[in-house]
Amino acid sequence: MEIDLNADLGEGFGIWRLGDDDALLDIVTSANIACGFHAGDPLTIRRTCAAAVDRGVIIGAQVSYRDLAGFGRREMDVEPDELSAEVLYQVAALDGVARAMGGRVSYVKPHGALYNRVVRDAGQAEALVGAVAAYSPDLPVLTLPVSEVHEAAARYGVRTVTEAFADRAYTPEGRLVSRREPGAVLHDPAVVAARAARMAAGAEIAAADGTMVEVTARSLCVHGDTPGAVALARAVRDALNDAGLSLRPFA
Amino acid sequence: MEIDLNADLGEGFGIWRLGDDDALLDIVTSANIACGFHAGDPLTIRRTCAAAVDRGVIIGAQVSYRDLAGFGRREMDVEPDELSAEVLYQVAALDGVARAMGGRVSYVKPHGALYNRVVRDAGQAEALVGAVAAYSPDLPVLTLPVSEVHEAAARYGVRTVTEAFADRAYTPEGRLVSRREPGAVLHDPAVVAARAARMAAGAEIAAADGTMVEVTARSLCVHGDTPGAVALARAVRDALNDAGLSLRPFA
Amino acid sequence: MEIDLNADLGEGFGIWRLGDDDALLDIVTSANIACGFHAGDPLTIRRTCAAAVDRGVIIGAQVSYRDLAGFGRREMDVEPDELSAEVLYQVAALDGVARAMGGRVSYVKPHGALYNRVVRDAGQAEALVGAVAAYSPDLPVLTLPVSEVHEAAARYGVRTVTEAFADRAYTPEGRLVSRREPGAVLHDPAVVAARAARMAAGAEIAAADGTMVEVTARSLCVHGDTPGAVALARAVRDALNDAGLSLRPFA
Amino acid sequence: MEIDLNADLGEGFGIWRLGDDDALLDIVTSANIACGFHAGDPLTIRRTCAAAVDRGVIIGAQVSYRDLAGFGRREMDVEPDELSAEVLYQVAALDGVARAMGGRVSYVKPHGALYNRVVRDAGQAEALVGAVAAYSPDLPVLTLPVSEVHEAAARYGVRTVTEAFADRAYTPEGRLVSRREPGAVLHDPAVVAARAARMAAGAEIAAADGTMVEVTARSLCVHGDTPGAVALARAVRDALNDAGLSLRPFA
Repeated sequence: MEIDLNADLGEGFGIWRLGDDDALLDIVTSANIACGFHAGDPLTIRRTCAAAVDRGVIIGAQVSYRDLAGFGRREMDVEPDELSAEVLYQVAALDGVARAMGGRVSYVKPHGALYNRVVRDAGQAEALVGAVAAYSPDLPVLTLPVSEVHEAAARYGVRTVTEAFADRAYTPEGRLVSRREPGAVLHDPAVVAARAARMAAGAEIAAADGTMVEVTARSLCVHGDTPGAVALARAVRDALNDAGLSLRPFA
Repeated sequence: MEIDLNADLGEGFGIWRLGDDDALLDIVTSANIACGFHAGDPLTIRRTCAAAVDRGVIIGAQVSYRDLAGFGRREMDVEPDELSAEVLYQVAALDGVARAMGGRVSYVKPHGALYNRVVRDAGQAEALVGAVAAYSPDLPVLTLPVSEVHEAAARYGVRTVTEAFADRAYTPEGRLVSRREPGAVLHDPAVVAARAARMAAGAEIAAADGTMVEVTARSLCVHGDTPGAVALARAVRDALNDAGLSLRPFA
Repeated sequence: MEIDLNADLGEGFGIWRLGDDDALLDIVTSANIACGFHAGDPLTIRRTCAAAVDRGVIIGAQVSYRDLAGFGRREMDVEPDELSAEVLYQVAALDGVARAMGGRVSYVKPHGALYNRVVRDAGQAEALVGAVAAYSPDLPVLTLPVSEVHEAAARYGVRTVTEAFADRAYTPEGRLVSRREPGAVLHDPAVVAARAARMAAGAEIAAADGTMVEVTARSLCVHGDTPGAVALARAVRDALNDAGLSLRPFA
Repeated sequence: MEIDLNADLGEGFGIWRLGDDDALLDIVTSANIACGFHAGDPLTIRRTCAAAVDRGVIIGAQVSYRDLAGFGRREMDVEPDELSAEVLYQVAALDGVARAMGGRVSYVKPHGALYNRVVRDAGQAEALVGAVAAYSPDLPVLTLPVSEVHEAAARYGVRTVTEAFADRAYTPEGRLVSRREPGAVLHDPAVVAARAARMAAGAEIAAADGTMVEVTARSLCVHGDTPGAVALARAVRDALNDAGLSLRPFA
């Protein structure tokens, strides 16, 4: 059984920093690096790519709506044709910088509001996948188990990889409980780590209503924007190791 | 005798347009396409790359300071390390988009204030060339005959290509007369076209003081931002053809 | 009977221009000046304010989503609290510049996607009106006859002013026919001018299905982004004058 | 003897934070609030204005070059006319937001590279002061004791206020030692606090070469971007109080 750990990295901009990239690079196997549209100036991008290459962490393009002020967290009604060009530009920029640092972009993960939008918006999902296919059909796209991205990707011959969140509550149908609901986010490292190990092993986890649900995923997403988050990520990694699971990137 | 004609293209942003790209693509052999930092949103960049590929026009990365509001025309004291990352990001983004359209970036030309700054600022020249070398040492850089870029390029094993301006007055030393001086810019199509033909053939032209000066160049720069500019560019192309010169890209 | 003519002005950015501001300033009584979020750099804003003051044209703040790349035409899920701060900032900036030029902001008109969104989104409508009230409750807000803005404005004690579009088709219920429908935009100057005169006089106009509908408005919106648009705007003004209507700003 | 303490506040952008604004608001008498060009989104600006008003801290407009990516720290060759419009826009925006929160802009302090540039560049100094005068000639401008701003301000009838830095080394001529020199920045709270008290009392301080120099200032600048910086600022305030000086804003 193999499982990947991914996290968002390089999400500073200019003088501003966000999250503990160094700590996360020692924990994850895949780094979703910001491409400049929601975060990530060129210097930060280059440094983050170099640091990922140094540690042998796989690099993914964390593409986003063009929205620095909103950190890519506001849904935008971007026309598919324009969105496609924006994704292509971002993947290209990150891949070129990564290659100059000795690595390369190995997958694509949409960020924030775009991540959520493409799950249910067929037009934007197609724009995303079309851009990836135009750049390189070999790049898999990370998304939720139930997502319009799978359909679009099948049409373009692009591979998708599903991910799960060990620190989030799930519905009995296997969907994420909205962050607006109480109990949507789990904070107890022991609980989160145990769920991560079960998810990675293909075992069922308890849904929000207590019933059991299977959440299949080849990658688990962890965060690093608070000291507690880093500790949680480390606990997840330790639990996966303790369970005898093999931590390996999917790409 | 071979000569290249280059022009700035793709310099719109969002709803805003600048220049007559279609007309210029029928005239030039090399297109300096804006990369998004002084102009050029991803949709414009993709369209311009596709149009250049359609016509067989060579694509160059027109890299710039990060300054949309000033169109890259204000000198900025960017630290070399940051400037280098910015150039790398721009070249990478444009090259990736160009490749998705069936072409590729074949050279680099700095834009506006950066173009002028690297001529005399060794630190920024080194940052520019270092970024090009990190991305691909095979990409030549367009610059003036007398320029710090040549020295930096020699250290990095990067090729430089010199360009001239048929519509600009020159000093007896072969430098451009500042735009602030009267007579710095020539407007008579017959005069400009004749100078272009002489420059391309390696013959001397009249400097501002009437003495003759040799302005060697493998590429001539033309403009397309006014109807008159397009006509001037066409007159230059016709004069070069009439003189039996071979219009060929340098890259 | 009094009627106002308003148009969008100052919608360039940096080197880029849009529309014929000078021509429109001779036609309209109210100028919706871009505030910098979808268009309008400070120099353009200052010049446009000065030109409006020179001609005695009333100045309105054309507030927008923060989206230069999309010209404010993409709907954004901005949180009301943040949207409110963005509107406040824009109104303040424009009013201060206008005052330094001898004028002042006399009304607020949301732009593009924000204009359409606040018509039906009570949260964003409240954010818009709340910001206006916080800045100055004396500033009226331009909106469609049927709009959430009226309800929010009533709660805040802010006045609304309704506007109509003489070059747009209307449904029998008095709503705009979507631009995606054929025939949504009218181009014949004689037809548009006649509709403008009827709207301004309070007479019914023909809806898209041929039935008659009353479209009440204190202001008519005209455009200036193409030569044809300017001619159309001039035809509207002439028709209003010929009909004996008094062209007067509402603010 | 009266002395003012000023600090930079509101220098986050979107999701990104910088410095401990709450701690500083308990220490300073004047808050230089970012206006959106080097930092400061509208929500941050509004909150910071409200917090300053709550504590009775005077608000100043911290105007800057338009450079989010470089935090306003890179000198830019902005034309005076454009710079003037940019300053006017920023002062206007901040003042309007401050007024909506129950306060107002009471002075102007240029930020970063602009602060340093206007000290020696008469053209940019005039652009800065001209914008302030156009907005409100009653707003004083903070600058160094030796500065082109004084000359420009005298011509426009604008008041200047000089400031000093208790944590910086000075030359025997009373100028700041460049940050590139060793020992340019002092870190010992006891030393810095003692220098602050001497500066505020009009007594001489030791220059970098050991000679004594008088550094006259009506305001002292403190920082809050590190925990150490806040402690240093508090030490300065305590020392001023202990010396019997009256902490009062200059505006």
